[in-house]
Amino acid sequence: MENKTYSPEYLRNFITQFFEKLGCPTEDARAIADAFVRAELRNLSSHGMIRLKDHYQLWEAGRLNVHPDIKVVHETPGTAVVDGDNGVGMLVATRAMQVAMEKAKNSGSGWVATRNSNHFGIGSYYALMAVENDMIGLAMTNGNPLVAPANSVERLLGTNPIAVAIPAGKYPPFVGDFSTTPIARGKLAVAAKKGEKVPYGYVIDKDGNPSDDPDILKEGGAMVPLGGDLAHGSHKGYALGAIVDILSGVLSGANFGPFVPPNLAYLPLPEEQVGKGMGHFFGAWRIDAFMEASEFKSRMDRWMEIFRNAKPVPGKKVLIPGEIEREAEERIAREGIYVLPAIQKDVKELADKLEIEFEMKG
Amino acid sequence: MENKTYSPEYLRNFITQFFEKLGCPTEDARAIADAFVRAELRNLSSHGMIRLKDHYQLWEAGRLNVHPDIKVVHETPGTAVVDGDNGVGMLVATRAMQVAMEKAKNSGSGWVATRNSNHFGIGSYYALMAVENDMIGLAMTNGNPLVAPANSVERLLGTNPIAVAIPAGKYPPFVGDFSTTPIARGKLAVAAKKGEKVPYGYVIDKDGNPSDDPDILKEGGAMVPLGGDLAHGSHKGYALGAIVDILSGVLSGANFGPFVPPNLAYLPLPEEQVGKGMGHFFGAWRIDAFMEASEFKSRMDRWMEIFRNAKPVPGKKVLIPGEIEREAEERIAREGIYVLPAIQKDVKELADKLEIEFEMKG
Repeated sequence: MENKTYSPEYLRNFITQFFEKLGCPTEDARAIADAFVRAELRNLSSHGMIRLKDHYQLWEAGRLNVHPDIKVVHETPGTAVVDGDNGVGMLVATRAMQVAMEKAKNSGSGWVATRNSNHFGIGSYYALMAVENDMIGLAMTNGNPLVAPANSVERLLGTNPIAVAIPAGKYPPFVGDFSTTPIARGKLAVAAKKGEKVPYGYVIDKDGNPSDDPDILKEGGAMVPLGGDLAHGSHKGYALGAIVDILSGVLSGANFGPFVPPNLAYLPLPEEQVGKGMGHFFGAWRIDAFMEASEFKSRMDRWMEIFRNAKPVPGKKVLIPGEIEREAEERIAREGIYVLPAIQKDVKELADKLEIEFEMKG
Repeated sequence: MENKTYSPEYLRNFITQFFEKLGCPTEDARAIADAFVRAELRNLSSHGMIRLKDHYQLWEAGRLNVHPDIKVVHETPGTAVVDGDNGVGMLVATRAMQVAMEKAKNSGSGWVATRNSNHFGIGSYYALMAVENDMIGLAMTNGNPLVAPANSVERLLGTNPIAVAIPAGKYPPFVGDFSTTPIARGKLAVAAKKGEKVPYGYVIDKDGNPSDDPDILKEGGAMVPLGGDLAHGSHKGYALGAIVDILSGVLSGANFGPFVPPNLAYLPLPEEQVGKGMGHFFGAWRIDAFMEASEFKSRMDRWMEIFRNAKPVPGKKVLIPGEIEREAEERIAREGIYVLPAIQKDVKELADKLEIEFEMKG
């Protein structure tokens, strides 16, 4: 395995160079690279190396600002609006989360609505920044429209994920990080590539009928909200996705609903814009704004023991949210990061254009 | 219809008297009555008149404090922990939400973790308090355990609802108020009473198999989290319910998970307690802590127009979350509140015991 994988350091350095070549200051490029590599480490590779090409193409199309003036444009002691100046999403999000944590130091909690940003990768990256500071972290983002509200066939919401990270004591943190849909978009793409059907309950066709075709969005279909159908609570998933859209998009001054711009250069920007770029929403609650941190952590340890030891469905294991990604992170940090040959090839081409080294693995 | 229904004023006065007779100060009894009546008005009668008997029995068993010293026991400029001193849940929750809004005035947002409380009724009541003050309101609560985590058959979580209310301009507010399960508990009880089966995807039996028996909880079964099964995202519903439990129960110093006490006098308190009473979590974000309120509201109006006019599934209507309850509220305020004869009878018996008047309708 060893020589077929990349070390996290190797990829961190490569991605830093990559964004430097696009024109990013070194410090910014490093911050972006760290978020990319963390996605690979947590085995969420749909938000990792595969996205370098998208960023390159957006940059080439003049749709990404590599010298953004990311700034607070409105604030109170415990809240702020950050304008990302169309910078790389991971950079804008990292800065915004830092503002939220700074606000929390003074006010007990800090909240930052963020506009004029782009795809931010994995929400748990920002939520976990808070955990390192004995805070509970929250990150959410809107996204370009793929999901139809309950009773509708029109794609108006992104998969609008929510990430919440909560520190514990002797155990690793609780990390819930989930789209407000039954599945993430990537699973449809994988099934489509393999020529496989998907279970009913993920997508509907243009008339609202259940479909098992992962490519149905190309024919006017839509993804459904978490819950699947009305009888099973899709109106709840719709409400949840809508709340993410409103906090991230409406409250920040970004685009919302059908106006959220796609982060792919081959997709045109919507003709009408109702705000600036994509929107995120970040929060941090200081633990000791509620309870002594040591007491909270020992309560969380107890919580985790109870849930981990819950009576399982025969043959299954009960998990603490975030456990799979954390175990992946430990394993991949040890074994190295595997990048699919097709993605290596794409990255190599980009590296050649930018005149930087990129080593192909097996 | 008129003479078969109660006016909101009639019931508000009756419930006020009812709680006064239990020993509550008039002001407290009024606050409680208002929350009860609002549940009836919003057609959420499972949290209305039917619950008076539960409160009476808890009080009779000495498990409800009618002279609670509800107080802030820990605070920062933007956060607080409120101890409800085992008071009536609606009273404790109303006070806690007031603290959250007070904190938001200074800090931009306010957050209150609440312990030593009881069943708070409908979350939207508190979330809507914020809307009246140009804030976004959030209310959540844990509850006694009915729901098994993904991959488990053990009931460890309540239906743990989340309510978020967001003001708009010319349109009524957005109100998402939903349990983190496919259905609320009440729907199982109704099906069981009618001798009907429920759709698969609501409950599992004691071995984790899908069941259509609404009474399966009596035989070791459990409700499932929103999503239904793993293939359709029940791990997301589990994470969401867990977040509600942790913020409401762990962070506040209340009970959490399997330790949350039942709010029914005929169910014993769990032998072990890991905190005080039931826990809630409240939040308020001042709109103008992010953006001028008028601008936000006109953006919300636009959001609502787009979603309401989304292309529907043929024959269906796309709704804004909260629309059904608001329409019910308008209709019921006009037509009066209908109370099932069996509930009237129970309430009449309580009224007789307490020596207060209660008029039976038709």
